[in-house]
Amino acid sequence: MRTGVWLVGARGSVATTSIVGALALRAGLAGPTGCVTELAELRGPALPSFADLVFGGHDVVATPLVKRAEALADAGVLPGRLVAALADELATVERELRPAPAGGSQADRATATIRDLDDFRRRHELDRVVVVNVSATEPVARPHPAHADPATLRAALAGPEEVLPVSSLYAYAAVTAGCPYVDFTPSTGLRLPALRALADERGLPYAGHDGKTGETLVKSVLAPMFAMRHLAVRSWSGVNLLGGGDGATLADPAANAAKVESKQRVLGETLGYQPQGGTRIDYVESLGDFKTAWDLVTFAGFLGTGMRLEFTWHGCDSALAAPLVLDLARLTAAAHAAGHRGPLAELAFFFKDPLAAPTHALAEQWTRLCEFTRRLHAGGSDDQPG
Amino acid sequence: MRTGVWLVGARGSVATTSIVGALALRAGLAGPTGCVTELAELRGPALPSFADLVFGGHDVVATPLVKRAEALADAGVLPGRLVAALADELATVERELRPAPAGGSQADRATATIRDLDDFRRRHELDRVVVVNVSATEPVARPHPAHADPATLRAALAGPEEVLPVSSLYAYAAVTAGCPYVDFTPSTGLRLPALRALADERGLPYAGHDGKTGETLVKSVLAPMFAMRHLAVRSWSGVNLLGGGDGATLADPAANAAKVESKQRVLGETLGYQPQGGTRIDYVESLGDFKTAWDLVTFAGFLGTGMRLEFTWHGCDSALAAPLVLDLARLTAAAHAAGHRGPLAELAFFFKDPLAAPTHALAEQWTRLCEFTRRLHAGGSDDQPG
Amino acid sequence: MRTGVWLVGARGSVATTSIVGALALRAGLAGPTGCVTELAELRGPALPSFADLVFGGHDVVATPLVKRAEALADAGVLPGRLVAALADELATVERELRPAPAGGSQADRATATIRDLDDFRRRHELDRVVVVNVSATEPVARPHPAHADPATLRAALAGPEEVLPVSSLYAYAAVTAGCPYVDFTPSTGLRLPALRALADERGLPYAGHDGKTGETLVKSVLAPMFAMRHLAVRSWSGVNLLGGGDGATLADPAANAAKVESKQRVLGETLGYQPQGGTRIDYVESLGDFKTAWDLVTFAGFLGTGMRLEFTWHGCDSALAAPLVLDLARLTAAAHAAGHRGPLAELAFFFKDPLAAPTHALAEQWTRLCEFTRRLHAGGSDDQPG
Amino acid sequence: MRTGVWLVGARGSVATTSIVGALALRAGLAGPTGCVTELAELRGPALPSFADLVFGGHDVVATPLVKRAEALADAGVLPGRLVAALADELATVERELRPAPAGGSQADRATATIRDLDDFRRRHELDRVVVVNVSATEPVARPHPAHADPATLRAALAGPEEVLPVSSLYAYAAVTAGCPYVDFTPSTGLRLPALRALADERGLPYAGHDGKTGETLVKSVLAPMFAMRHLAVRSWSGVNLLGGGDGATLADPAANAAKVESKQRVLGETLGYQPQGGTRIDYVESLGDFKTAWDLVTFAGFLGTGMRLEFTWHGCDSALAAPLVLDLARLTAAAHAAGHRGPLAELAFFFKDPLAAPTHALAEQWTRLCEFTRRLHAGGSDDQPG
Ligand SMILES: NC(=O)c1ccc[n+]([C@@H]2O[C@H](COP(=O)([O-])OP(=O)(O)OC[C@H]3O[C@@H](n4cnc5c(N)ncnc54)[C@H](O)[C@@H]3O)[C@@H](O)[C@H]2O)c1
Ligand SMILES: NC(=O)c1ccc[n+]([C@@H]2O[C@H](COP(=O)([O-])OP(=O)(O)OC[C@H]3O[C@@H](n4cnc5c(N)ncnc54)[C@H](O)[C@@H]3O)[C@@H](O)[C@H]2O)c1
Ligand SMILES: NC(=O)c1ccc[n+]([C@@H]2O[C@H](COP(=O)([O-])OP(=O)(O)OC[C@H]3O[C@@H](n4cnc5c(N)ncnc54)[C@H](O)[C@@H]3O)[C@@H](O)[C@H]2O)c1
Ligand SMILES: NC(=O)c1ccc[n+]([C@@H]2O[C@H](COP(=O)([O-])OP(=O)(O)OC[C@H]3O[C@@H](n4cnc5c(N)ncnc54)[C@H](O)[C@@H]3O)[C@@H](O)[C@H]2O)c1
Ligand code: NA
Ligand code: NA
Repeated sequence: MRTGVWLVGARGSVATTSIVGALALRAGLAGPTGCVTELAELRGPALPSFADLVFGGHDVVATPLVKRAEALADAGVLPGRLVAALADELATVERELRPAPAGGSQADRATATIRDLDDFRRRHELDRVVVVNVSATEPVARPHPAHADPATLRAALAGPEEVLPVSSLYAYAAVTAGCPYVDFTPSTGLRLPALRALADERGLPYAGHDGKTGETLVKSVLAPMFAMRHLAVRSWSGVNLLGGGDGATLADPAANAAKVESKQRVLGETLGYQPQGGTRIDYVESLGDFKTAWDLVTFAGFLGTGMRLEFTWHGCDSALAAPLVLDLARLTAAAHAAGHRGPLAELAFFFKDPLAAPTHALAEQWTRLCEFTRRLHAGGSDDQPG
Repeated sequence: MRTGVWLVGARGSVATTSIVGALALRAGLAGPTGCVTELAELRGPALPSFADLVFGGHDVVATPLVKRAEALADAGVLPGRLVAALADELATVERELRPAPAGGSQADRATATIRDLDDFRRRHELDRVVVVNVSATEPVARPHPAHADPATLRAALAGPEEVLPVSSLYAYAAVTAGCPYVDFTPSTGLRLPALRALADERGLPYAGHDGKTGETLVKSVLAPMFAMRHLAVRSWSGVNLLGGGDGATLADPAANAAKVESKQRVLGETLGYQPQGGTRIDYVESLGDFKTAWDLVTFAGFLGTGMRLEFTWHGCDSALAAPLVLDLARLTAAAHAAGHRGPLAELAFFFKDPLAAPTHALAEQWTRLCEFTRRLHAGGSDDQPG
Repeated sequence: MRTGVWLVGARGSVATTSIVGALALRAGLAGPTGCVTELAELRGPALPSFADLVFGGHDVVATPLVKRAEALADAGVLPGRLVAALADELATVERELRPAPAGGSQADRATATIRDLDDFRRRHELDRVVVVNVSATEPVARPHPAHADPATLRAALAGPEEVLPVSSLYAYAAVTAGCPYVDFTPSTGLRLPALRALADERGLPYAGHDGKTGETLVKSVLAPMFAMRHLAVRSWSGVNLLGGGDGATLADPAANAAKVESKQRVLGETLGYQPQGGTRIDYVESLGDFKTAWDLVTFAGFLGTGMRLEFTWHGCDSALAAPLVLDLARLTAAAHAAGHRGPLAELAFFFKDPLAAPTHALAEQWTRLCEFTRRLHAGGSDDQPG
Repeated sequence: MRTGVWLVGARGSVATTSIVGALALRAGLAGPTGCVTELAELRGPALPSFADLVFGGHDVVATPLVKRAEALADAGVLPGRLVAALADELATVERELRPAPAGGSQADRATATIRDLDDFRRRHELDRVVVVNVSATEPVARPHPAHADPATLRAALAGPEEVLPVSSLYAYAAVTAGCPYVDFTPSTGLRLPALRALADERGLPYAGHDGKTGETLVKSVLAPMFAMRHLAVRSWSGVNLLGGGDGATLADPAANAAKVESKQRVLGETLGYQPQGGTRIDYVESLGDFKTAWDLVTFAGFLGTGMRLEFTWHGCDSALAAPLVLDLARLTAAAHAAGHRGPLAELAFFFKDPLAAPTHALAEQWTRLCEFTRRLHAGGSDDQPG
């Protein structure tokens, strides 16, 4: 099953780490640590192998992939020897990267994007192309009447106004080109009625939003722990300090807002009430690609006794995100092959703000993911399509 | 369903907090925070109500219960006003406490214990008495040939030698008196072939070992998180600083060993490999009944990138343990009523070192506990007795 | 040396704790933990004794002092038995508290304030009255031409405009009434040319700003440590979570700004460069009077190796502040008696944002404080008045 | 002032980092971060420059220096490019390293050591050679009558018994060869009456013990903070997790004991009382050359209110130690040149367990160090020789 993985933001940290990692895995130069789909519970014939994956993508910057990879090696995100060993393979991927379409109306840019996707699929004789958004987080989008349905949207796109946020324009192009779409960012992406309707028309599956890699991952197991033990969480405060490209983007309060919002949801929905306290994201340039998150949880036990839990998470965001990007591409490709359509609630395990998902508790999400994948491997898509 | 709760170590911190809490709940003076059996998922008709519970117990010390309760209030474990408001009720329970049988052979002491249990049951016309061990942790026990089967054991008990550790002598008496038995401590208790055989003969259920209230509780959700994400845990080191009665006992290296061992198991069994590092318990008298645990986890992600998680848990052990003691008494009573016998693997949720349990992952234990309790409420014990 | 201590904000947490503590010390019901002036290095004849202190003050609320004290006892700030034992003494102080003058022009309010101060001094035959501002932090003040000199100021005060921030109006009244003035808050207080000139005219000493009790205290020893070891601090980020009255005030971004600014200064001035990162103050109501601060410091060592220090401070702000308020009152009274005038740079040890002080390093501040106090005890004010 | 720096344990992590660092500084490839003697307060003409330093040393292993340096680069302790750039210079130092003398009596080994030192001095026409012990920590030594005075010692060394611990045999050889001696380890070294007498006879200065680089460094500023604020420290518990060569040595309980003891002293001596709690050192191989220390301090403030401070130190021990080794060599050489003899109490700033030092407070130690160095620069050794 030859599968294209088209990365929007293809020269960013997450994209570069994903590409280097997949190439390293294929070359037998690295093990699958961090790849959920390589666990015994999920492995199986329905998923495209790493050798089956072909990478391409768009970006607004032109820094050569190998330069980005070297910078990530200097920053301790990638082993330098891997980057050196994969220079040829990286050059091959480099040839598949395209500048993000610019100029003209949004309809023009969509058309150019679709053309890039079609060319990519044809050139490599791919069974399908999964589009994954790993570009910079955009500010919370403003509503617009054209978001309501496909026809209105199509008409508006041709006009001079920028009716869609960029992430949604990519989603529109992906869906129109018949590509399943995954949003690893908190941006709007496919979350507009017009785009969902289009995806439904085309029978496409999609997944999102916002890869769950750090503080929220930990929250998604600790919050259920408090709930299962009937402990009353009084406050949950968190601070995220990060540098790197994503950090710089999030230094912008508007992008920050989108992210913080998706981080908060897990608590209220898991506990059944909203504890006091909030989450902060602060940009500290010198922290680079490593993020430090600190959370303080105060809670009451039996007869009101006050207690506390605090944790510090010191993680490399790109190293956490990249294997999940590969997992999502493989799973979404398999879901598409099996005829699933609409939001893939079973992939909630991967996201801070999962689409259509009934729970934020990681262990439940895991159970659903395992069952879903088992069905994919068993070829059982017919009886219960997503 | 009038249910006796016989506490071994009835004047200790955990026991006193359990008793004060149950009385407060019955009197409507406190809410059920921390009581798992009061969550919507577990509540139901099969469980005895708090008003159905009658308390009694043994202890080697004679400090009046109300004095212990006042001391716990001074230490911030219990609200002082609760203790004051429940003075009469505490005096009533005081009358049900008996000195731990002493002198004579172990057989003599067992007989005296059984007599206390029988009297208690008869005096209060109880449907059953659940014996819960919350006494001081004892050193790891030495093996003895008499532990092999009931007949050899009975013969040996009559002799001058102390063949059973104290916790097991209580378990022997409980089982002989027809009482289900719960061990909230890491002591040997019922974990000897002779005693298991006796419990089976008598058709009794039992549960244990070692209430899961702090660092291990957190481990039981974090370790599965690392496993589900295919992250490679390199080291997991922990230190527990605690004062209080239990801390003083654990300052003894032998008792400490029993506890540390049960704390370690969760990691190896959940991850499938044993990370480097160990767990320490240190006695710091001035910390009193509040325990501080600090854990450092180092782990590798994709392509080997090193990352870290550290957490500090600052909990009041008795406030965490007491509601679970009530939960265990209620659930074990209901299991007995429903005809369950043998080790209650479905209660693994409550224990650091659960009997006969297939997993240490809290969320899975929770699922099993919910199913088990649902069956109890549905009266469905016949089809699948424990 | 009978010394009045006039507290602006006399019914607040810090003031109430100061009063209860001084009464307890006088009655021999508590020891001097936290009182710097009771250390061997500072004790001596120049300081008024606790029995010499007479308390009075202004507040805008009327909650009885004993009620505030009981509330602080419930919150774990004060021992309940102390409050009960000191009921009579608290009632005596209650009679010395006055409503904050309101209505009329600022000149009218100043006159009323001065009258309250004069009456207090006369009524108790006090040698002097030290005015200490422990009222709520006010927003950063706007500049006004009338701040330039005493004459312009006096004229403007009589007009309808509110030319002075409240803290400065109290400072004006204090100085006019011949009282030394201490500002324990980050508010403007005496920091205006006109007020400084007035204080100088009257030959009065004054001290401030912003009591150093938590995160900044720790910074004032850790930052010098990095400097002395020639380690390069790359980033220093902090978050302060607090409830209580002061927390509620600081939830207002304007008041918050004043506070954050005084917290930041110590780093740049001690290190000689400003590391990346900032300080946050977040209000979390349920934390009550206990504050949790978390700081992350990243630094480079030899050959650029990256390292980290993180700390969590969990302190009771009022319990930390109150003994310092007593220290400041005693020291400022003694300085006044010895003829010191102008800003007391030697009291920098107590402040986040010390007046006229050459260093933020705690140990150096300590050395200066010790020398200053030694001179006071030796009666040596003549040779080197502040 | 051409100065030899003879490192005992010359192929260890600290030694290798010191050598690479000095070569890098000399070559202008790195800045002096971490070098205390390069701060404005200490810089000056009395100290040998980095270009004046010539390195040699003993070790029991034969791993080439450049291999050790490469291993340290792989572990993130040294920048790989530095090691590559300094290959030639490292080869030059390599030629100055000698196998630790072995076989024969201790007198024979001392003679061989002295010969190595003399040859080194002569070969490079050095003004003096400072011997610095950075070899593995040895177990706490057993007392022996021969430790009492030089004559008895000399006689005993010639016999078959091993009367001196290895560190002391090196110290004996150093002193006999007329070399000032610095002990960066907690081993016995010169701390025996016989050796002190010998050093006095030869008019030699010496310094030690146990470089202060991590947890104890932080303690030496935090403990004085609590003391200066009259806060009552109730407990201070610490755990040190470390891998690396030093960690492996300290996994041996006997070596561990020597280290833990020197770590504890700072608290009791600074506070005037010993708080509860202790310090642990645990070996966790995978942590490599980075050490994580966690400390919990509980303390009481005014009226007994309980509070807490916890910190986590994540440091690279060799990167912290190496610049101090250079500082100590430079300062001790200058002290020798200036005629100082006996224990250099003014170098207490550098040590966990300083010789003859009146205080453990870092800031006071700093003041003394600055004064001492100023006198050295001023050529003022005559008036106040150590
Ligand atoms: N790393 C994680 O753990 C994690 C977790 C959840 C979500 N995310 C999200 O993943 C995204 C990528 O993160 P990153 O660290 O790689 O950031 P990055 O800044 O390194 O990369 C983003 C890339 O997107 C490109 N880009 C920006 N606008 C574009 C456009 N209009 N079209 C095409 N490309 C565009 C940028 O040029 C850049 O190369 C962010 O939105 C982030 O919030 C990351
Ligand atoms: N509190 C928790 O979170 C927690 C969690 C898991 C396990 N536990 C276990 O629960 C037990 C009780 O803890 P605690 O804090 O109440 O300790 P505690 O020391 O306050 O109480 C123990 C009581 O047992 C009594 N006792 C000792 N030997 C006895 C004997 N032979 N017969 C009868 N009574 C005896 C003691 O006199 C004491 O009153 C301990 O074994 C502890 O390890 C507690
Ligand atoms: N507690 C600490 O550690 C600490 C440290 C540094 C500075 N401070 C400062 O000390 C001050 C007091 O803190 P707190 O915790 O007691 O706060 P609080 O809110 O408990 O008390 C402030 C009191 O000031 C009174 N007040 C407000 N406006 C007034 C006015 N115009 N005139 C007279 N009284 C007025 C309020 O009614 C209240 O009673 C704050 O400014 C705080 O920032 C406290
Ligand atoms: N790194 C720090 O922050 C720090 C701080 C204080 C003290 N120290 C002390 O510095 C010493 C060195 O630490 P390290 O991390 O370099 O350890 P290491 O194990 O890397 O190096 C020790 C070296 O000493 C050598 N050695 C052992 N016995 C010897 C002998 N008899 N003669 C000559 N050489 C011998 C070993 O072969 C090894 O090369 C240790 O004693 C450590 O406790 C280090
Ligand atoms: Na921490
Ligand atoms: Na912490």
